[in-house]
Amino acid sequence: MARKRSLDEGPVIRGSILTAAAELFHQRGYGTTSIRDIAEAAGIASSTLYHHFANKQAILYAIVINFMTDFVASTSAVLADSTLSPEAKIARTVRLHVEMSDERRPELLIGNPIRYALSPDQQQDGVALQTIYHDCVRDTIDAGVQAGDFVAPDTNLATMAVLDMLNGIREWYNPAGELGREALIETYTSMIFRLLGAEAVSVVRDKSDRDAASAI
Amino acid sequence: MARKRSLDEGPVIRGSILTAAAELFHQRGYGTTSIRDIAEAAGIASSTLYHHFANKQAILYAIVINFMTDFVASTSAVLADSTLSPEAKIARTVRLHVEMSDERRPELLIGNPIRYALSPDQQQDGVALQTIYHDCVRDTIDAGVQAGDFVAPDTNLATMAVLDMLNGIREWYNPAGELGREALIETYTSMIFRLLGAEAVSVVRDKSDRDAASAI
Repeated sequence: MARKRSLDEGPVIRGSILTAAAELFHQRGYGTTSIRDIAEAAGIASSTLYHHFANKQAILYAIVINFMTDFVASTSAVLADSTLSPEAKIARTVRLHVEMSDERRPELLIGNPIRYALSPDQQQDGVALQTIYHDCVRDTIDAGVQAGDFVAPDTNLATMAVLDMLNGIREWYNPAGELGREALIETYTSMIFRLLGAEAVSVVRDKSDRDAASAI
Repeated sequence: MARKRSLDEGPVIRGSILTAAAELFHQRGYGTTSIRDIAEAAGIASSTLYHHFANKQAILYAIVINFMTDFVASTSAVLADSTLSPEAKIARTVRLHVEMSDERRPELLIGNPIRYALSPDQQQDGVALQTIYHDCVRDTIDAGVQAGDFVAPDTNLATMAVLDMLNGIREWYNPAGELGREALIETYTSMIFRLLGAEAVSVVRDKSDRDAASAI
């Protein structure tokens, strides 16, 4: 006799549907994955799946919004932390961006062609979350420029450049390849610091420090 | 009475088919554009179009390969010019990349989701052309590092970062907006120079020059 599912199992079933679907969309593509495939991979009946999601598009939407909400929550916490310097905020954000993109790769569908399967309104919700992230990064670069830590003639363009660099990684980085994730993060952090003028600033400062020291 | 078309008109007709198709794919999307739409926009009969291209996919393939061949020819000429310094090569390549992406936007389908409509072999031909470009840029960065003009702990990652920055532009840049193309090129060139350590190098050199000058 089948055990009667309690109401509390709802979120667990929902989670397993989303995990199974993200993996299938990532591996086989959205178009070729059926509701039946997803239900099977999640170990439930299709009828149970329909109890949670109206259709495949609703599943895709939930995956995109879950991921982007977690992503924005994690990065905002760092970028809004008033105890951190702009440089520390950027360094931690680069790490979070690379780590989350790598660890939750199957869910990273917002920048993927699959996103076109969403309705315009659904896409807009994803873009709105990306905009929050963009604005937090830009505000941090602005604050760094104000503090003299960064040099950026146009902080909007600097933000786009940094985000395009970070978003590009998932298109070519092979986690199973020779380049380890820590080396990737370290090199990208140093390139982004240079792009933001942080290294040039510290080169000049070091030089001034040396000049000051030798003058004593 | 219809004028009999000469054989010499072949390339002209072919060109007008590709121009019309690129514009339609760009505006309406690949899936919703029919062969009849393309023939109509090119001002020819569908039967004439089929004389030049077997199907819609063959048209898409021709657009992608034409664009990438022109792109690689233009950038390779600069990147292989032995009279130019690595810095001059990178500056001219940034300009070419931004200008060609902007001026031939409808043809820029290789990095577009539309590319998935190509067969794996056809996609591979596009990727092979991208790889030639990537390798020329990397060799130039390598040469710059050897010459002491650039600082890049990993020239492969520096190349990916630069290309992702440049390829990202087409996703958000609005040519009709406030930011002019010259300002965009100038800011991107300076950010890429900083990323490659070129500005840090010249900051130090300027400082040394000043030190040397004040010592005289």
